[in-house]
Amino acid sequence: MSIARFAKTSPWTMLRGAGQVMFQNNVWTGLLFIIGIFIGAYIENMPEVAWGALVGLVVSTVAGYIFGLPESDGDQGLWGFNGILVGCALPTFLANTVWMWLALIICAAMTTWVRTGMNNLLAPWRVSSFTFPFVFCTWCFLLAGREFAGMAAAHMSAPVIDYTIAPLDCHSVWDFIQYWLKGVAQVFLIDSWITGVIFLVALAVSSWRAAIWAGVSSLIALVMALLWQAQGSSVIGGLYGFSAVLTGIALGATFWKPTWRNSLLAAFGVVATVFIQAAMNALLAPIGLASLTAPFCIGTWLFMLPRLKPSVTSGNE
Amino acid sequence: MSIARFAKTSPWTMLRGAGQVMFQNNVWTGLLFIIGIFIGAYIENMPEVAWGALVGLVVSTVAGYIFGLPESDGDQGLWGFNGILVGCALPTFLANTVWMWLALIICAAMTTWVRTGMNNLLAPWRVSSFTFPFVFCTWCFLLAGREFAGMAAAHMSAPVIDYTIAPLDCHSVWDFIQYWLKGVAQVFLIDSWITGVIFLVALAVSSWRAAIWAGVSSLIALVMALLWQAQGSSVIGGLYGFSAVLTGIALGATFWKPTWRNSLLAAFGVVATVFIQAAMNALLAPIGLASLTAPFCIGTWLFMLPRLKPSVTSGNE
Amino acid sequence: MSIARFAKTSPWTMLRGAGQVMFQNNVWTGLLFIIGIFIGAYIENMPEVAWGALVGLVVSTVAGYIFGLPESDGDQGLWGFNGILVGCALPTFLANTVWMWLALIICAAMTTWVRTGMNNLLAPWRVSSFTFPFVFCTWCFLLAGREFAGMAAAHMSAPVIDYTIAPLDCHSVWDFIQYWLKGVAQVFLIDSWITGVIFLVALAVSSWRAAIWAGVSSLIALVMALLWQAQGSSVIGGLYGFSAVLTGIALGATFWKPTWRNSLLAAFGVVATVFIQAAMNALLAPIGLASLTAPFCIGTWLFMLPRLKPSVTSGNE
Repeated sequence: MSIARFAKTSPWTMLRGAGQVMFQNNVWTGLLFIIGIFIGAYIENMPEVAWGALVGLVVSTVAGYIFGLPESDGDQGLWGFNGILVGCALPTFLANTVWMWLALIICAAMTTWVRTGMNNLLAPWRVSSFTFPFVFCTWCFLLAGREFAGMAAAHMSAPVIDYTIAPLDCHSVWDFIQYWLKGVAQVFLIDSWITGVIFLVALAVSSWRAAIWAGVSSLIALVMALLWQAQGSSVIGGLYGFSAVLTGIALGATFWKPTWRNSLLAAFGVVATVFIQAAMNALLAPIGLASLTAPFCIGTWLFMLPRLKPSVTSGNE
Repeated sequence: MSIARFAKTSPWTMLRGAGQVMFQNNVWTGLLFIIGIFIGAYIENMPEVAWGALVGLVVSTVAGYIFGLPESDGDQGLWGFNGILVGCALPTFLANTVWMWLALIICAAMTTWVRTGMNNLLAPWRVSSFTFPFVFCTWCFLLAGREFAGMAAAHMSAPVIDYTIAPLDCHSVWDFIQYWLKGVAQVFLIDSWITGVIFLVALAVSSWRAAIWAGVSSLIALVMALLWQAQGSSVIGGLYGFSAVLTGIALGATFWKPTWRNSLLAAFGVVATVFIQAAMNALLAPIGLASLTAPFCIGTWLFMLPRLKPSVTSGNE
Repeated sequence: MSIARFAKTSPWTMLRGAGQVMFQNNVWTGLLFIIGIFIGAYIENMPEVAWGALVGLVVSTVAGYIFGLPESDGDQGLWGFNGILVGCALPTFLANTVWMWLALIICAAMTTWVRTGMNNLLAPWRVSSFTFPFVFCTWCFLLAGREFAGMAAAHMSAPVIDYTIAPLDCHSVWDFIQYWLKGVAQVFLIDSWITGVIFLVALAVSSWRAAIWAGVSSLIALVMALLWQAQGSSVIGGLYGFSAVLTGIALGATFWKPTWRNSLLAAFGVVATVFIQAAMNALLAPIGLASLTAPFCIGTWLFMLPRLKPSVTSGNE
């Protein structure tokens, strides 16, 4: 790696990395995302989440140069987007100790290496690993928090094998608007509607279509959660929205041509993602683990794969 | 899609879809399967299971035309077999509400799309997704029933993390014959030996070999469950039989040439499937989820893969 | 298969099979491994583990000839290494009944067939299945022990959904040396530091590099477990060491060229494996299942994949 080149490109690379979490290779979108994270984290009185995001972003991006990975990826910010999410997640769920911070650095660097491998794994189907490197590595480190007293799983929900559902009782329209906006903010694990507004603006700066799909997808998730009477606390926290938002942006505004047919299929993908989200919440309850953005990865892969004949067979026919 | 063609082919397509659950591209087998489902469901006093099967079959087949998938698949009934199983499973485990029925329609349609993707995923190894689209989508919707009060997991077994095994005490030969037949009936989640008889007849109409392997496999599963002293309630319900039956038909009467060597290997695959079944029952107990036909998919993939060199490498060597 | 050839090659094949557990295609290493297993098992007063290892080794190797698999694999001992581990694991966790022994034979034979399939599955990425056939099949049979009273899961840890971590209090240096050596012995599920010494010697006979990486990796795991204050009982048993040891030998002394850069990356892989180990311990706690060598397989695949572009895409570019 050339230090000069590293020094030159990396600040922008990092902002692009933040933007790439929602598929936007755009410096300003990334900057607004980070501003939204800081505002939300300080409103929540959890500054460690904001600083963790910065550390994760820097470490994962620098790691790409140290590992000597192709710099074309780095230039598009494809090294940092998993790391920034790791930086949001670990301080959200684990005790704020020096060992947690060391683990955060290890985990963030790991995502950059793991992403290259997962992309090789998915290469035959011409689909990428999305945020799954973040999901997989973070799951490992969060679960490790149940074995390591040095980074105890202090803020993870207690494991339960059975529980009752307490659906939402009547709320004001203004409440629902907040839940809808929180659905967007939770992409970065931020529980604040103000951050949701900033994120929608950040998307619009780069792509109107992406901003619209983010809003519509969070709305679909909210309406479904109400119709099927989902756990009220999840609805209030916007926890049905974030994966739906990412699936919506991916299918509706990133990978498929914007035809009517594709838009309907993308909306179907968002609906499927909401059911997958509910399923993963129940599946992970006995270990008290958050589903993170796994429902988005699974839902988007499932809906993209039917159109992705592996290069293999075509190669042999 | 051409409405004309759709109207012309789909009734037969649907019957073939029912038959394809046990690998029989045969209208009469499919018809007898549906008759067996209705008789069994009404004997069990669970008519919603029978009607759910019909709805799932129709929706998943129609979905194939709407999604514009290759009609050659539709003509062989390869769109409907996952959907009919979804239609049997959801009313069996979830509360009978309007939201469950809407979920059933969404889930059945989803299987048709997901199947195409899973087949692309498995294409390099020249193996198909079998009933796994049904398994995966149904798992999602059943687990969602633990989060959505609108389609509560009313009839799913309660999650348990530990329990004692109550093996079967002495029973009459006639009892064992019923358990053996139920093993075949449970392929469609029907707990009735009469349905088991109808299913065996339905198979014989299309293929003697398939009928014999179904019977033999259910017998192997029953004998093993008794020798290893499995949970009595599972044996009585025929719950060790259905996946073994499908593995037996797949390996013994569908994909491998009927040599002695292959027949012994197929029987070994059936034995392995019974252990995988027991393992999945224990694995899924903490979330109170049924293993559905996953043990069949896993067992059959595991035993077919050694003979399926990926087209990739051959393509490159 | 030719009986003559079988009789001629198999004794050596079997010793090589024992050696291949730690990637050593060496008769003497295999012999010392078996000696270490017997000494450790008898010290632990668990002779069935040692005899199980022998049975598993013989059955899985003979199975390769019976299945008619390519004998080049057999000659390198690639049929036996999963079987010997099955033979160590089942008597360790299941009740010592005739049905357990029959299950052991079925499971050991199954690994030889399943390995061929898993290798086909991984062929596009030019990586092998390592000990995962052992892990997968053993998981199935151990979990089946919770459903089958005939081979009850007598010695598996009770399922728990929540527990407190009791880190290690002060110990003598000699204690730590024992834990470090046990980390190596646990590769074959042996809880004895003496066996650890024998295993290190066995490795040195075949490869100094492998022996050094085994020792270093077990040390890294021990130090990390202490720094992050892992469950004391796991540290005392050397249960953080064995997967790290295998990852270290695989990345540091088997698959990658021994450059400084690669050595640092291999050490990073060992660190990652320790976190994955902790995660799997927590993940499997609700079903009281041991993680076996899965953390090694996952960690090593994750770290090798970034350098393994699938042959597919290269084939099409």
